[in-house]
Amino acid sequence: MNRKLRMGMVGGGKDAFIGAIHRIAANMDGLVELSCGALSINPEIARESGKMLFLPEERTYLTFEEMIEKETKLPADQKIDFVTIVTPNFAHFAPAMMALDNGFHVVIEKPIAFTLDEAKQLQQKVKETGLILLLTHTYAGYPMVKQAKQMIKDNVLGKVRKIWVEYPQGWLSRLSEREGNAQAAWRTDPKKSGKSGSMGDIGTHAAHLAEYISGLKITKVCADLNIVVEGRQLDDDGNVLLKFDNGANGVLMASQVAAGEENALKIRVYCENGGLEWAQHEPNTLLVKWLDRPTEILRAGAGYTDRLSSYATHNCRTPGGHPEGYLEAFGNLYRNFALALSARIDGTEASAEILDFPSVEEGIRGMAFIDNVVRSNESTEKWTDYTV
Amino acid sequence: MNRKLRMGMVGGGKDAFIGAIHRIAANMDGLVELSCGALSINPEIARESGKMLFLPEERTYLTFEEMIEKETKLPADQKIDFVTIVTPNFAHFAPAMMALDNGFHVVIEKPIAFTLDEAKQLQQKVKETGLILLLTHTYAGYPMVKQAKQMIKDNVLGKVRKIWVEYPQGWLSRLSEREGNAQAAWRTDPKKSGKSGSMGDIGTHAAHLAEYISGLKITKVCADLNIVVEGRQLDDDGNVLLKFDNGANGVLMASQVAAGEENALKIRVYCENGGLEWAQHEPNTLLVKWLDRPTEILRAGAGYTDRLSSYATHNCRTPGGHPEGYLEAFGNLYRNFALALSARIDGTEASAEILDFPSVEEGIRGMAFIDNVVRSNESTEKWTDYTV
Amino acid sequence: MNRKLRMGMVGGGKDAFIGAIHRIAANMDGLVELSCGALSINPEIARESGKMLFLPEERTYLTFEEMIEKETKLPADQKIDFVTIVTPNFAHFAPAMMALDNGFHVVIEKPIAFTLDEAKQLQQKVKETGLILLLTHTYAGYPMVKQAKQMIKDNVLGKVRKIWVEYPQGWLSRLSEREGNAQAAWRTDPKKSGKSGSMGDIGTHAAHLAEYISGLKITKVCADLNIVVEGRQLDDDGNVLLKFDNGANGVLMASQVAAGEENALKIRVYCENGGLEWAQHEPNTLLVKWLDRPTEILRAGAGYTDRLSSYATHNCRTPGGHPEGYLEAFGNLYRNFALALSARIDGTEASAEILDFPSVEEGIRGMAFIDNVVRSNESTEKWTDYTV
Amino acid sequence: MNRKLRMGMVGGGKDAFIGAIHRIAANMDGLVELSCGALSINPEIARESGKMLFLPEERTYLTFEEMIEKETKLPADQKIDFVTIVTPNFAHFAPAMMALDNGFHVVIEKPIAFTLDEAKQLQQKVKETGLILLLTHTYAGYPMVKQAKQMIKDNVLGKVRKIWVEYPQGWLSRLSEREGNAQAAWRTDPKKSGKSGSMGDIGTHAAHLAEYISGLKITKVCADLNIVVEGRQLDDDGNVLLKFDNGANGVLMASQVAAGEENALKIRVYCENGGLEWAQHEPNTLLVKWLDRPTEILRAGAGYTDRLSSYATHNCRTPGGHPEGYLEAFGNLYRNFALALSARIDGTEASAEILDFPSVEEGIRGMAFIDNVVRSNESTEKWTDYTV
Repeated sequence: MNRKLRMGMVGGGKDAFIGAIHRIAANMDGLVELSCGALSINPEIARESGKMLFLPEERTYLTFEEMIEKETKLPADQKIDFVTIVTPNFAHFAPAMMALDNGFHVVIEKPIAFTLDEAKQLQQKVKETGLILLLTHTYAGYPMVKQAKQMIKDNVLGKVRKIWVEYPQGWLSRLSEREGNAQAAWRTDPKKSGKSGSMGDIGTHAAHLAEYISGLKITKVCADLNIVVEGRQLDDDGNVLLKFDNGANGVLMASQVAAGEENALKIRVYCENGGLEWAQHEPNTLLVKWLDRPTEILRAGAGYTDRLSSYATHNCRTPGGHPEGYLEAFGNLYRNFALALSARIDGTEASAEILDFPSVEEGIRGMAFIDNVVRSNESTEKWTDYTV
Repeated sequence: MNRKLRMGMVGGGKDAFIGAIHRIAANMDGLVELSCGALSINPEIARESGKMLFLPEERTYLTFEEMIEKETKLPADQKIDFVTIVTPNFAHFAPAMMALDNGFHVVIEKPIAFTLDEAKQLQQKVKETGLILLLTHTYAGYPMVKQAKQMIKDNVLGKVRKIWVEYPQGWLSRLSEREGNAQAAWRTDPKKSGKSGSMGDIGTHAAHLAEYISGLKITKVCADLNIVVEGRQLDDDGNVLLKFDNGANGVLMASQVAAGEENALKIRVYCENGGLEWAQHEPNTLLVKWLDRPTEILRAGAGYTDRLSSYATHNCRTPGGHPEGYLEAFGNLYRNFALALSARIDGTEASAEILDFPSVEEGIRGMAFIDNVVRSNESTEKWTDYTV
Repeated sequence: MNRKLRMGMVGGGKDAFIGAIHRIAANMDGLVELSCGALSINPEIARESGKMLFLPEERTYLTFEEMIEKETKLPADQKIDFVTIVTPNFAHFAPAMMALDNGFHVVIEKPIAFTLDEAKQLQQKVKETGLILLLTHTYAGYPMVKQAKQMIKDNVLGKVRKIWVEYPQGWLSRLSEREGNAQAAWRTDPKKSGKSGSMGDIGTHAAHLAEYISGLKITKVCADLNIVVEGRQLDDDGNVLLKFDNGANGVLMASQVAAGEENALKIRVYCENGGLEWAQHEPNTLLVKWLDRPTEILRAGAGYTDRLSSYATHNCRTPGGHPEGYLEAFGNLYRNFALALSARIDGTEASAEILDFPSVEEGIRGMAFIDNVVRSNESTEKWTDYTV
Repeated sequence: MNRKLRMGMVGGGKDAFIGAIHRIAANMDGLVELSCGALSINPEIARESGKMLFLPEERTYLTFEEMIEKETKLPADQKIDFVTIVTPNFAHFAPAMMALDNGFHVVIEKPIAFTLDEAKQLQQKVKETGLILLLTHTYAGYPMVKQAKQMIKDNVLGKVRKIWVEYPQGWLSRLSEREGNAQAAWRTDPKKSGKSGSMGDIGTHAAHLAEYISGLKITKVCADLNIVVEGRQLDDDGNVLLKFDNGANGVLMASQVAAGEENALKIRVYCENGGLEWAQHEPNTLLVKWLDRPTEILRAGAGYTDRLSSYATHNCRTPGGHPEGYLEAFGNLYRNFALALSARIDGTEASAEILDFPSVEEGIRGMAFIDNVVRSNESTEKWTDYTV
């Protein structure tokens, strides 16, 4: 490529949380430029946001339909390469389908859609069009998560026996959705968020992380979802027992009423000869707990490159001790997506390290996870088979 | 009291693990002396162990029956005050009953008995005799566990909503019971250990800790017990969903195949206004995670005595920064038992801080926990009512 | 502003370390675009690097003189706003002076120059021209460093009594400069790096951090600089006793032969009523150790905004628990510089939070620090007065 | 031995800090019994304390002279084996000399004496009598300190290059000696404590730890001692640059005005191929930071006995994950002293592991350390040769 890729954004007007994150992630490595946007359904906010982001007026659109329509007609050397969708869950599907139908690649904030059925339609569409879709399961962008995945894949620790993944947050400990917290409002509203609250919002991240690192698939769940804060409509807390396809067992916990916690995603994978532990709060560290020798602290960017996977080093920008964080993990998703897209455009081959980003399959798994835990929660049977 | 209390020990010959721990705990504060023992069912080991412990030959007994019989007949200023039982689980009941029947107070290593029925008989006997029984749920002896309990009791954090308690160990990751590991051998043998392995051995500690700190009772369980290492007869791993009597939910995990873990008991209690976190590996610290202000690190022995419960300070021997550990926690159980017993002998009143040690009620709960999780594990129903 | 600021870069060709960091930092927030560069003194590398960065050929210059000359002549709506200098230390001064002389604002990687005299000339020039200069003392860009500074300034903890600042790295534990490590080669070469090695490279960061957070000035030093690895020409390790202008004492340690350390900058400031501790490896945390109450863990981006300084929140992009790191700290310097520059261009007032970035004064202090510790090291007197 | 060793204690009446610690340490392993005491110079306190400790009235002495005199005359099967001295520093020498003169072995709380000269007399006396003296430099009793020492000795990490040892406490941050704090009163009083405050009280521990672990000797010091709290007579804070006999450099910091710190002794030793880090607050962990591979977390009591020194395992009582702390470290000193003494009595050989406890040589080094840093502090020369 001899130019930056051009991005059009749907949603993400000023004051939105995740849209700003996507822009930083896209900007960071100088591979992508924001070229246009339909940044809000509120025209005033859309215009103001476009101005703040230095968008030309004529490419500050008021609806995603307008954006896609008009961009489609621009000359090849001007029109966008891909559409990024950062709206609430219920508004993922329509712009995604329209973008794909018009030949644009797509980035979607997770969960991929509002229902499993929508997810399947998107999968089908991606298959048909051959376009590239990135689903931003951020945590898969961390180098030490990739390190963990590769160590399991390389059988360094033997067969996986047990997975504990926990994701406690405290920010919904009170009924903030009634106190003007816009994030809380849509995320706890079944019409905007979907059929699950905490499990949809963060449980899906945890489930994805467990499957991503272990290379296993969940086959059964036993879910206990709770509405802890009175007056809320969707689960704000839940515990799920898991079975995986190699016989391993697991526990997944997702709570948004764990008062005093920030965003404490953590995973532990126990295998025959040792275990791995990774926590998002200190993401540059991977603990390798050996059965027969001292625990090792593996560090992102460290000099002992013989011990680090190429997938880990590919996703680092700095030497060890210069902490990279959430935005860099997010940036890695964009960087890999951009490199894959550039390779596509250039007609070259992208490396396996580049192609390792979440897409429609992960989107399907995420929607299925929500369906399955909700179904299990309503059942009096202990185990519910995980269906897709 | 103007003398040390006299202890007779059943089990705990040389090479036994927990007997040595009990002796250190009993010695530590200079309130107890070992006066006699039936230290092993192997006469040679019994004699050798007695010699190593400086016991007189005539009080180095070969069976607990002999010990209790002969001690009963000694003059009041010589005979033991209490019997400590540190045999494997199946051999707790008989010496305990005989000791109580002969007027001796009793210390028993947990679990209190082999079956719930035995536990109930012991409870009845203690009630009848009015004697004092200490059940050594060690973790309840840590000052910062007591601090946590009192903070919940004093409603500092509001209603309890969620409890996560985890107890991973890795030492049974291989089939060590077939490789001459004596500890592994009896603990994985249903005839010596009881109807559960990991849940009986360490799950009961976790369950006790959860109920002790929260002041709540488990009302329902949904258990998934696993035999992870092939060839083993009892569960070596398990995950349990919990419901408590105030409506709180919880998760309890106990695993002895978490390769690379030592003895990593940890509990988190989430309440309306914040959460508590305590981990046995760093026991002098209690994290208080507030919903609306910075997390605080409460430290055992700290100078800010206005912030520390009298139950915490009563169980510290040193100022903050002089780490106390497992043996001191164990020692606290003995110290409180000894002070309670001395008060009884002296006809004085022991303080509430002294009387706060586990006894028959906790023993019953422990045996019931084992019964309930085993029953739940065998059921296809999600929830099993917790019965006692 | 209704456009991005335009940056020209001197140095930072492919394979350079700090140039790439500057570009990520400049890109991150979408306020700056790289418009041209004199990226290497090697023409081939310069051209290749320009291509990789999507620079137009005509703005891929071969020398900084060419760049500044040609950019000066471009129309106002094309020419760069500022020059970023990321060459080795000996090559900071000339491009900086030329840029300032031609009306460009300047960003310089630290240390500001090769000698104190150069630094003073730059200071004079900035004063004369009124242009804005950013010196990238990265660590001052971390939100919790700013939090610490403001807490000291607001006298929350009383008078500062003692400062311990340590900066151990291990990467020069062997004679890597003889093994083809280009970074090691120039940094250990007095002709390129200056009169000190470790003290110049990282000691200056530590000294800056101590003065920045405490608001104090070093008045005396007692330095012990060492060449630990045989065959090296400059100090690779050193310890310095400090006195500050309020009477506080301190210790500064900088070592590049602390084998096994990454980039472990850490500072502790002790005051009358408590202390602060911040470590770069976990930069989102500031420990506040109170004399009379529990230590608090202050977290960047936390919800308790009443406890966080406006300087801290201004420099965060994400809510607590989404770790920001080294690149975001670096990005904060650029963001504040860009906002200050935009305000200048727009004729508006930049806030105090924006204007809080290192500049020529800090550059002078850094060069003086090097001079003073080198002088002290050569002296047999205990204390050397810190002169500027 | 077929009996416990008999101890007589000088000092350590109720409310004394360190006397109680010594008794717990002596009791813990069942090898020692308290047989008599001259527990206070206040007769009432002496008697009350004796009663609380279950001492017979006739062996509750009022002065150490009385105690030693009368004990000397008791029959061999009754009289004490050794005298433990836990008085303030100025009152160490006289009872120690008298005990040795009467054939009793001795345990002394550090520092060994009030002056270097006294220390030398004690050394001479120990040499003449051949009796055993234990100096309770507690920190040398920790298993992972011993592990560190042996790793250096075995050259696992190459030559030692740099030692950083820090010992911050905060308890003298205010003028507590004027507010009825008895510990503060004597420790800040030159007539009772000696010619240095913080350096004597805790700096000596730090210096001992540095020499103990590294096997090196300090050869030069450059000290900056401070009286931070106005109105105090002795240093309450200090920083010392060090040179060691192999050319290594170091920094030692001891402060009792580090507000918010507890007892945060920590040491880092950097060698050619890696470094060691040990902190008293988490004493069961030794970090081994390798130059070329991941940092390892070595744990006391761990199963990987091939990686742990016999000196470490000899000084553990429990398997990994059952934290042992300050009292066990102290207990290790007593246990080794008792085993060495028993071997002497039995005419057998004590192992090297047993004999590894501090004695008169360490006492001399400690007193010399105080002398040297006080002398250096008064000098305007940078370096002061360390003399003994």
